[in-house]
Amino acid sequence: MIQNKIPLPRCRLRELGVSIGHFPTGKFNAITDVKGVKVGQTTLIQGDGRITGKKAGPIRTGVTCIVPGENIFQEYITAGSFILNGAGEVSGLTQVTEWGTLETPILLTNTFSVGTCSSAMIHYLTEKNPSLGLEQDVIIPIVGECDDSWLNNIAGSHLKQEHVISAMENAKTGPVQEGNVGGGTGMITCDFKGGIGTSSRKISMGSSFYTMGILVSSNFGERKDLRIDGFPIGELLACKYKDVSSRKDNYGSIIAVIATDCPMSSHQLNRLCKRAALGIGRVGSYAAHGSGEIILAFSTANKTHRDNRDSLDRIKSIPDKKMNLFYDSVIEATQEAILNALCMGEEMYGINNHFCPALPLDDIKQIMSKYYTFKNSLYNDMVN
Amino acid sequence: MIQNKIPLPRCRLRELGVSIGHFPTGKFNAITDVKGVKVGQTTLIQGDGRITGKKAGPIRTGVTCIVPGENIFQEYITAGSFILNGAGEVSGLTQVTEWGTLETPILLTNTFSVGTCSSAMIHYLTEKNPSLGLEQDVIIPIVGECDDSWLNNIAGSHLKQEHVISAMENAKTGPVQEGNVGGGTGMITCDFKGGIGTSSRKISMGSSFYTMGILVSSNFGERKDLRIDGFPIGELLACKYKDVSSRKDNYGSIIAVIATDCPMSSHQLNRLCKRAALGIGRVGSYAAHGSGEIILAFSTANKTHRDNRDSLDRIKSIPDKKMNLFYDSVIEATQEAILNALCMGEEMYGINNHFCPALPLDDIKQIMSKYYTFKNSLYNDMVN
Amino acid sequence: MIQNKIPLPRCRLRELGVSIGHFPTGKFNAITDVKGVKVGQTTLIQGDGRITGKKAGPIRTGVTCIVPGENIFQEYITAGSFILNGAGEVSGLTQVTEWGTLETPILLTNTFSVGTCSSAMIHYLTEKNPSLGLEQDVIIPIVGECDDSWLNNIAGSHLKQEHVISAMENAKTGPVQEGNVGGGTGMITCDFKGGIGTSSRKISMGSSFYTMGILVSSNFGERKDLRIDGFPIGELLACKYKDVSSRKDNYGSIIAVIATDCPMSSHQLNRLCKRAALGIGRVGSYAAHGSGEIILAFSTANKTHRDNRDSLDRIKSIPDKKMNLFYDSVIEATQEAILNALCMGEEMYGINNHFCPALPLDDIKQIMSKYYTFKNSLYNDMVN
Amino acid sequence: MIQNKIPLPRCRLRELGVSIGHFPTGKFNAITDVKGVKVGQTTLIQGDGRITGKKAGPIRTGVTCIVPGENIFQEYITAGSFILNGAGEVSGLTQVTEWGTLETPILLTNTFSVGTCSSAMIHYLTEKNPSLGLEQDVIIPIVGECDDSWLNNIAGSHLKQEHVISAMENAKTGPVQEGNVGGGTGMITCDFKGGIGTSSRKISMGSSFYTMGILVSSNFGERKDLRIDGFPIGELLACKYKDVSSRKDNYGSIIAVIATDCPMSSHQLNRLCKRAALGIGRVGSYAAHGSGEIILAFSTANKTHRDNRDSLDRIKSIPDKKMNLFYDSVIEATQEAILNALCMGEEMYGINNHFCPALPLDDIKQIMSKYYTFKNSLYNDMVN
Repeated sequence: MIQNKIPLPRCRLRELGVSIGHFPTGKFNAITDVKGVKVGQTTLIQGDGRITGKKAGPIRTGVTCIVPGENIFQEYITAGSFILNGAGEVSGLTQVTEWGTLETPILLTNTFSVGTCSSAMIHYLTEKNPSLGLEQDVIIPIVGECDDSWLNNIAGSHLKQEHVISAMENAKTGPVQEGNVGGGTGMITCDFKGGIGTSSRKISMGSSFYTMGILVSSNFGERKDLRIDGFPIGELLACKYKDVSSRKDNYGSIIAVIATDCPMSSHQLNRLCKRAALGIGRVGSYAAHGSGEIILAFSTANKTHRDNRDSLDRIKSIPDKKMNLFYDSVIEATQEAILNALCMGEEMYGINNHFCPALPLDDIKQIMSKYYTFKNSLYNDMVN
Repeated sequence: MIQNKIPLPRCRLRELGVSIGHFPTGKFNAITDVKGVKVGQTTLIQGDGRITGKKAGPIRTGVTCIVPGENIFQEYITAGSFILNGAGEVSGLTQVTEWGTLETPILLTNTFSVGTCSSAMIHYLTEKNPSLGLEQDVIIPIVGECDDSWLNNIAGSHLKQEHVISAMENAKTGPVQEGNVGGGTGMITCDFKGGIGTSSRKISMGSSFYTMGILVSSNFGERKDLRIDGFPIGELLACKYKDVSSRKDNYGSIIAVIATDCPMSSHQLNRLCKRAALGIGRVGSYAAHGSGEIILAFSTANKTHRDNRDSLDRIKSIPDKKMNLFYDSVIEATQEAILNALCMGEEMYGINNHFCPALPLDDIKQIMSKYYTFKNSLYNDMVN
Repeated sequence: MIQNKIPLPRCRLRELGVSIGHFPTGKFNAITDVKGVKVGQTTLIQGDGRITGKKAGPIRTGVTCIVPGENIFQEYITAGSFILNGAGEVSGLTQVTEWGTLETPILLTNTFSVGTCSSAMIHYLTEKNPSLGLEQDVIIPIVGECDDSWLNNIAGSHLKQEHVISAMENAKTGPVQEGNVGGGTGMITCDFKGGIGTSSRKISMGSSFYTMGILVSSNFGERKDLRIDGFPIGELLACKYKDVSSRKDNYGSIIAVIATDCPMSSHQLNRLCKRAALGIGRVGSYAAHGSGEIILAFSTANKTHRDNRDSLDRIKSIPDKKMNLFYDSVIEATQEAILNALCMGEEMYGINNHFCPALPLDDIKQIMSKYYTFKNSLYNDMVN
Repeated sequence: MIQNKIPLPRCRLRELGVSIGHFPTGKFNAITDVKGVKVGQTTLIQGDGRITGKKAGPIRTGVTCIVPGENIFQEYITAGSFILNGAGEVSGLTQVTEWGTLETPILLTNTFSVGTCSSAMIHYLTEKNPSLGLEQDVIIPIVGECDDSWLNNIAGSHLKQEHVISAMENAKTGPVQEGNVGGGTGMITCDFKGGIGTSSRKISMGSSFYTMGILVSSNFGERKDLRIDGFPIGELLACKYKDVSSRKDNYGSIIAVIATDCPMSSHQLNRLCKRAALGIGRVGSYAAHGSGEIILAFSTANKTHRDNRDSLDRIKSIPDKKMNLFYDSVIEATQEAILNALCMGEEMYGINNHFCPALPLDDIKQIMSKYYTFKNSLYNDMVN
């Protein structure tokens, strides 16, 4: 039915005429819409064909760095988490959860590069903060991973300390690159090329306006299960791509990081993360046994200085009932971030000529356009 | 558009031509498809109009009893749980989770009748098991609740011990009554009449065939958020019903009980419950702050005698990777059980003339039929 | 060695010359030292000898009510919990943990009276708050239990609604009755009569003074394991009492409730509860499989009105690092509360002439006195 | 009082005449008493005096490797965990807990060397298992940390990959070195030199005999709080050492690893770990805010082959009630492992001439000897 003459260039979901939910997005529709949040990425793509040795290529990996604020080491912030399925790793998560605080950037990479990222962040932070490690003061790096070994020669450990530091040093506000970049370079979602995706929402509450953004490294799911805005487009695509081989078993993993400028307690942030899991579910995940579906959230609104000696902390937070607006909108934003990763991800050949197709944007655009036309006609019937 | 001449009589979702997912259902498409599982219900509907005193009506409540097997007090079974949002109560859940076992029936009722149900089950079990309570042997009843106070005079505590015992004594296999019955009598889902719903799935695994069933007392959500098989029908219905007042603040809740004959460890059952939460999300829940979304699961395959003195337990369980089939299918079954509650729930007037409409089945049937026609045409385009 | 001419009358631990730890106690060394906290108790002791029917005696039970403040239904407070071993029940705990708040009194009773207590509290609160249950507003009662069935005819369900309401209505500040009273009437600890015990600590922090109190219903442990201030006095007593039969198996349970006027977040209160578990361990518990060791905590310092419509909550809390003073002192207070239950508990005959001895205070006084003399002599050697 | 002419050479607790509890130990009183469990360690001690640059010394650190069995990568085993306080890190713990399995060795090191250990283990395992990382098969290393920065120049990252691999390759059965070795080299416990300690217990159950061992990297607590077998010897020592400066704040951390050959489910192992926390408490910990008190356990009795394709797993486990013997004995063994670390730890000068004294064994021996004499005299009085 669909004639792919010249395929559409990669673009974000909304450029296809598809948007998820009813809350407005921020300026960049990205986690960087939350003031002070920066993203930096290093992408390693090199070599082709068969692996000729452990240390050889092909290389399809990288690292993504989320910097929550100017100097959260000196002014730590509130954080929370939720684990939908724990067959994955966010190193440092235990302390984040125990203390309900975040005091370092967050790195996203492949499963075998967690150690390198961890060491690199310590190097980076001890350079910047000479007292760190010397005066009874340590930190635990936050490093999340997904498994890119279907495309990337993961055993080659090609990500080096300098790549990680480069990502941290080049982190910036504004638009975020998506798809085959940074920690998402070799990731796959519903058997199409996934990777890094982001989205944001604006929430108005009385006279206040808050922003919430999310960034994902998306690497989960089976083609047949993909849903866009509830529509089971994966069923249609599965038949079209039935001759394209895809990775088996152990369908796994998504790491999601949520940022907001709305004041929330760590307990509220934990609960917010749980709702992001519902968003992952709506894209088509059943949280497979082998999947590491881990969600972190932080709020930039409550800062505490590392040397704080006040006798009382005064934490602002929105009333619990008003969290419903965030619960609702985070489900939207999570879906859209994942779909942005899919829309922006380009087809890729990886190790041993494994091939992962890109989400066919022409098909998506045509199908979803027809779907919305259909839905609107029903709507018009209903109101008339 | 839709002409409601003589409205369709209440029927289950599949009778409207709608089915969720691809796994086959059991014979009754009910939790009772799991061998040995029985359901009993007592329904209390009495009085109309304004409340004239705390102890007066109108009464719109009841109790639903799930009996997992012939005598699980003597032969306890494996169980697990997950709490999506904990603004609710399943009394006894702490012990179920600590021990990973279930040794009593499960009762579902309204928020203020948990105590009555708890006492009634103790009365019932001590009658049947004279040693209980006498020889250093006690049990803790399992009682889940949702809040039916928008329709029912909940403060009147109209459910009595004899109603509870009647539900337990009349529990039976075979088809299960749905909608405004038992513990679901006064429950509301997405601002339509909800209540009790059930569904089941058959899972084939090598040469084995397993059955999994689920029963819900469904009481959550906002009209605009309702989704059937992913289709956001709530958006269409919200405009049609915009003049029908509904309860505010989303006082929610859903209690779900999963049964299976497949051998699973308590840890596997915990993880299974987490996926049912994804199913709740797909119907449209964002797990509101005030919602108690609690899921229990049990497997009838591993029985242990109360007086067991073996030196080793030998627990069978399916391999973790094969849980994926159950993870996938429980998301389907959860959605369908909730939708069955909606399809079977009849419109109801309750206290102070509060009115809750029934899900308009004619609309559902027509809209979903058009939707499937549309989807199939896309599918045919795609494969040709 | 020890001549029991006229045994010492029951008294609290400190009256024996034994005190636990180094923090000062409040005025009453009781949970009621926390301003606004009241305790009420109903004690049922009736009948002797063999059980002649389920509904007959002997009766050895009751209910203890902890009222956290004047009207926490209207002005709810911050709360947290921890479950060391969950073979027990605190009905309502799920919501306390999800919301991190407490909005009702807390009841402690026997395993089979949880339902009666739950219903009674609803009756009591709906009488006092006519809107409750009518305007989309419900509560979930908090009811903790231990198993007193070795002494009490638990299957007789002798605790009635009026007993529960009486405990709530008669709750008062000031000294708290301990031992065989209220919910602790039939409880046993380390094979001596236990029951209700309480203790408190004053914590000074800069220019602020805080009070923390704890009340337990103590029902766990084996005689040989009892430790007082670290000293394994149970080993000595076990040989003395080796001919006194005691309950077998399923050694279980303690419910502990911590109150403080120090501002703490719910997350801090969760963490505080974990340390109370360490205090339970220091008295000799290994948290047996059959034991329900559940701890709740609340802070009266942050009150939120039920109708609060503020756009931001402002929660005060002490800095996390300063929690160490509370972590340290709650371990002390927990031990002392349990030991007060033992010291004040009188010997009791129960059903079928089961006999539980009282902790022999003369022995305790003499042994601990010798122990402290011994320890002081070592101390003097060390400093000289 | 105590004349330290020639101080006692370092020895284990039992050589001082002190033993904890009543269960017998295994042959080596070490985690290696569990058949198949090996321990390897690399110790780095170099340089003295002031830090002259980040990469310079003094170096006081290392790594300890626990190898649970011959090839658990190919035949994974059952595992569990508990976090008493989570201000620390065991990288990989999330997956262990989700799956309830262990498939790699366990490494213990300092806070800033987690990354190096993680990378080294991946290098080591990919060398040994060429398919790892290539055929959709990855692992997540298990690396626990404590903070040795009061003695060690932690920011220098002196632990290198070759040190880690050496520890893994040299792992062996038999006696385990304790004190200032491996990952424990720079650790401190109750302001005395701590580090690596181990202990074991034999549990007889019917006709079966099981072994449970524990190894700790112990780095927590304040001097005044130290208790040996319940006796508050820390109070005595605190006055003696009052002029010895010690690290401030952030008292932190112990990682404990439990091994057993008794068949246990992952859920049982989780629960076992909780009881080890009670043992930590009995030595004097209040689980400070800054402390990472994390416990892992594994059972070697249920092995599953990586390529297992059976349709059913058959897990053996001891009956839950019989876990009480393990709950009781793990509290003993945990205490003894920590005390062995203290007894074997030698005094150490570290960075900037920070000094940590060794536990004074002469004092311990004399005091505890007097204490037992005193206790026995009471015992004899009691039985006569």
